[in-house]
Amino acid sequence: MTSEHEQYHQYFMTLALEQARIAYDCGEVPIGAIIVHNGDVISSGYNKTEQLQQSSAHAEIEAIESACTYLGTRRLQNTQLYVTLEPCTMCAGAIILARIPTVIYGAKDVKSGAVHSLYTLLHDTRLNHQCTVIDNILAMESQALLSSFFTSLRSGTIKKSSDILKKI
Amino acid sequence: MTSEHEQYHQYFMTLALEQARIAYDCGEVPIGAIIVHNGDVISSGYNKTEQLQQSSAHAEIEAIESACTYLGTRRLQNTQLYVTLEPCTMCAGAIILARIPTVIYGAKDVKSGAVHSLYTLLHDTRLNHQCTVIDNILAMESQALLSSFFTSLRSGTIKKSSDILKKI
Repeated sequence: MTSEHEQYHQYFMTLALEQARIAYDCGEVPIGAIIVHNGDVISSGYNKTEQLQQSSAHAEIEAIESACTYLGTRRLQNTQLYVTLEPCTMCAGAIILARIPTVIYGAKDVKSGAVHSLYTLLHDTRLNHQCTVIDNILAMESQALLSSFFTSLRSGTIKKSSDILKKI
Repeated sequence: MTSEHEQYHQYFMTLALEQARIAYDCGEVPIGAIIVHNGDVISSGYNKTEQLQQSSAHAEIEAIESACTYLGTRRLQNTQLYVTLEPCTMCAGAIILARIPTVIYGAKDVKSGAVHSLYTLLHDTRLNHQCTVIDNILAMESQALLSSFFTSLRSGTIKKSSDILKKI
């Protein structure tokens, strides 16, 4: 990857990291995503599983659903998905169903990542879509945000949004 | 499985098949799902990918989201998911995230099934949840519905709901 390409991807990953920081401030595990179409950001999402109490409300799903609504189609051609953490099995499956051509992610998720860590779903030629994948874009920033969140959670400095809501 | 257990599962799968038939009548690939909690049906869903133009609007996702809303929690303990077709990677991932203890499905999906056909995601001990899985419940009825749909689609007797919508 040339320096120019890397800067391009870093720029959009910075926007995905902004989404992750919104999640952090809401007491959610900080993961963010954006979708780019012909060079424009058309949707964004951040993890809302705690505040919505919806197990499927991952950043990628939010961004994919918004992009489908925006473009008026369930097939997201000519798009790139930027996400701060390696997608899980659910999100990798959603990426394949939406036919997203290119996925760029930050940090690896060694416990449940389904792109390189546990599975390589986006490269499975038995499925009817495969993606170009670029990893390790601003991975340290993404990992630092996650580490900070879990450290704060353990120390009681921040509370998960579901715990906050229970007290209202 | 005893005859009594089989009848129990067949009863609930009949309700999932009713959901699949609603999808069929809407011009959607006929797949249906329901979720049972302590013996009661608490949610249902059918494939709406064409009418909503949302790639993630699978029957299982609809049923899981409704069940989370109904129970007010993202963890669907003490539930069983009945679905007419073997779940794909996205839906298998969503089932794991929702911690659904038992999944009962009808027909196998040899092209994209992620429970037995291409992957065995619901039995992966590296992930933080595994399911009890029962397959082949009213599989012939489910497969017959799918075959009828695709035959009618090819012959032009029915149209996908997205094609219908384009003409309005």
